[in-house]
Amino acid sequence: MRRKHAGESVQVVMVGSVGIDTIETPLARRTDLLGGSLSHACPAASFFAKVGMVGVIGEDFPEKYLRLYRRFGIDLAGLRRVSGRTFRWSGVYEADMINRRTLLTELNVFADFSPELPASYRDAPFLLLGNISPALQLHVLSQARRPKFVVADTMDLWINTARAPLMDLIGKVHMLTLNDGEARLLTGAHNLKACAAKLMKWGPRFVVIKKGEHGAMLFSPSGVFLVPAYPVDDVVDPTGAGDAFAGGFMGRLAQRGAISERAVRDALLCGSVVASFGVEEFSVEGLRRLTTARIARRQAELKRMTRA
Amino acid sequence: MRRKHAGESVQVVMVGSVGIDTIETPLARRTDLLGGSLSHACPAASFFAKVGMVGVIGEDFPEKYLRLYRRFGIDLAGLRRVSGRTFRWSGVYEADMINRRTLLTELNVFADFSPELPASYRDAPFLLLGNISPALQLHVLSQARRPKFVVADTMDLWINTARAPLMDLIGKVHMLTLNDGEARLLTGAHNLKACAAKLMKWGPRFVVIKKGEHGAMLFSPSGVFLVPAYPVDDVVDPTGAGDAFAGGFMGRLAQRGAISERAVRDALLCGSVVASFGVEEFSVEGLRRLTTARIARRQAELKRMTRA
Repeated sequence: MRRKHAGESVQVVMVGSVGIDTIETPLARRTDLLGGSLSHACPAASFFAKVGMVGVIGEDFPEKYLRLYRRFGIDLAGLRRVSGRTFRWSGVYEADMINRRTLLTELNVFADFSPELPASYRDAPFLLLGNISPALQLHVLSQARRPKFVVADTMDLWINTARAPLMDLIGKVHMLTLNDGEARLLTGAHNLKACAAKLMKWGPRFVVIKKGEHGAMLFSPSGVFLVPAYPVDDVVDPTGAGDAFAGGFMGRLAQRGAISERAVRDALLCGSVVASFGVEEFSVEGLRRLTTARIARRQAELKRMTRA
Repeated sequence: MRRKHAGESVQVVMVGSVGIDTIETPLARRTDLLGGSLSHACPAASFFAKVGMVGVIGEDFPEKYLRLYRRFGIDLAGLRRVSGRTFRWSGVYEADMINRRTLLTELNVFADFSPELPASYRDAPFLLLGNISPALQLHVLSQARRPKFVVADTMDLWINTARAPLMDLIGKVHMLTLNDGEARLLTGAHNLKACAAKLMKWGPRFVVIKKGEHGAMLFSPSGVFLVPAYPVDDVVDPTGAGDAFAGGFMGRLAQRGAISERAVRDALLCGSVVASFGVEEFSVEGLRRLTTARIARRQAELKRMTRA
């Protein structure tokens, strides 16, 4: 892999977690893998745009993973190293490679994470607020100067424990991403169209409802777009698929520049494709040898698979 | 509804069950509904082609349901009435409107069902062998003269108890439909592409793997087609959705006449759309007031929802 985007200014800023994962599947067990939302989202975006990462790591974070980030061309000015251990997560996947059980969550240095944007990130036009507390997402957003497109991800934990700041945040972003169960929990509606209509009334022009291995649905003023999932031959490790999806989407949208329905649909398809490569190997291995040409080929294939 | 296809010769023959259902959902309980695979598949096909029904009913079968069949323009020469009670099924849907529990299955006259094609059906070019025992499916097939396109549906029961005749049947049909779990059970492969490759090697040119509310996948020599499900506002009764899908598909394909990848993809999309109308009301109520214009409009809408 060549060093990409050298010398360019950061176009996409992403905030989220950096972690060390131990993952068990029915076929294998792998320890000390590179994990956390940023480790999937930033590499996924790096194929298309210069990405800056806002996260925190501990003293134990392996140098080899910093080298890997750099090989993806990711700007690390926003990655702080502090004393203590890096966030750790461990989980076991069931035979379906979908359902999983968390064995261990050690927040470590992530517990006191206070994301700060370096000066060089404040004018970045694209901002992905990964799934951290809405208060922290708002704090990051307040440091950005006139971002062109802000995406926020959230989850049931924040819907249940931090609804007021979450509602504040939702009023300030261009796109909200969440899964179907979370959309129902947040809005009180059952039908996903009704959920999305309510969410859009609260602020975002775009709502993406994620459905795991079944793809996602985009709701916008132009209607509904069914984002297909590429049928992968063998899923090896689904961890971080949603983050790679969001990252690939943001990178591709930043590369295109304009925010139109057409550009958003294309970027979502691209995110879905990048995520499909990601799940074919453990951790971010599936993205290491990936090229924009292979992404484009699979995206064209996926389009053919949906053409009636 | 006008009497359709009057005087036309039967183009599509369907064999399967006719039943009386009692269905409970979180919102309602309805007794003595028209049910069984033919009651969904034949009306779904009737919008596009003249359909003949091969099934059995008992003395208790309500006249109003025979009138309803006729209003759909369905030919009833193959529907035999025998002494005894009609097949009855009763089930309860969970809150997700997907998972269900069977409360009662009374085979009644369906237990001794021996499907016979009336002379007027033997030259019909399109034949749908609904989910009955493979031995009976083979028996029906042996009565058809040079059918142009034969589709067989099957299920785990026959895979587990009648594998030899099922394999015989699979070697003789143009398309096999089954759900993802059944495809894995039948082939021993896990990945759906691998399952489909194996099934196609056994005979059928087309394999359709059904994924319930997530649509279906078509496998053919041209590759994969992801059949989307139309996002319905409120699912009232999902019973028979798979049968309406198969029926709408067969009817539309028969209307088009030619068997090409393009025609099959269009017909699958059409089947998905007809099924989406079917689940919006109990039993076949959702198909009663349906028109080809409404089907075409929703199909165009569904195509826009998948266009990147």
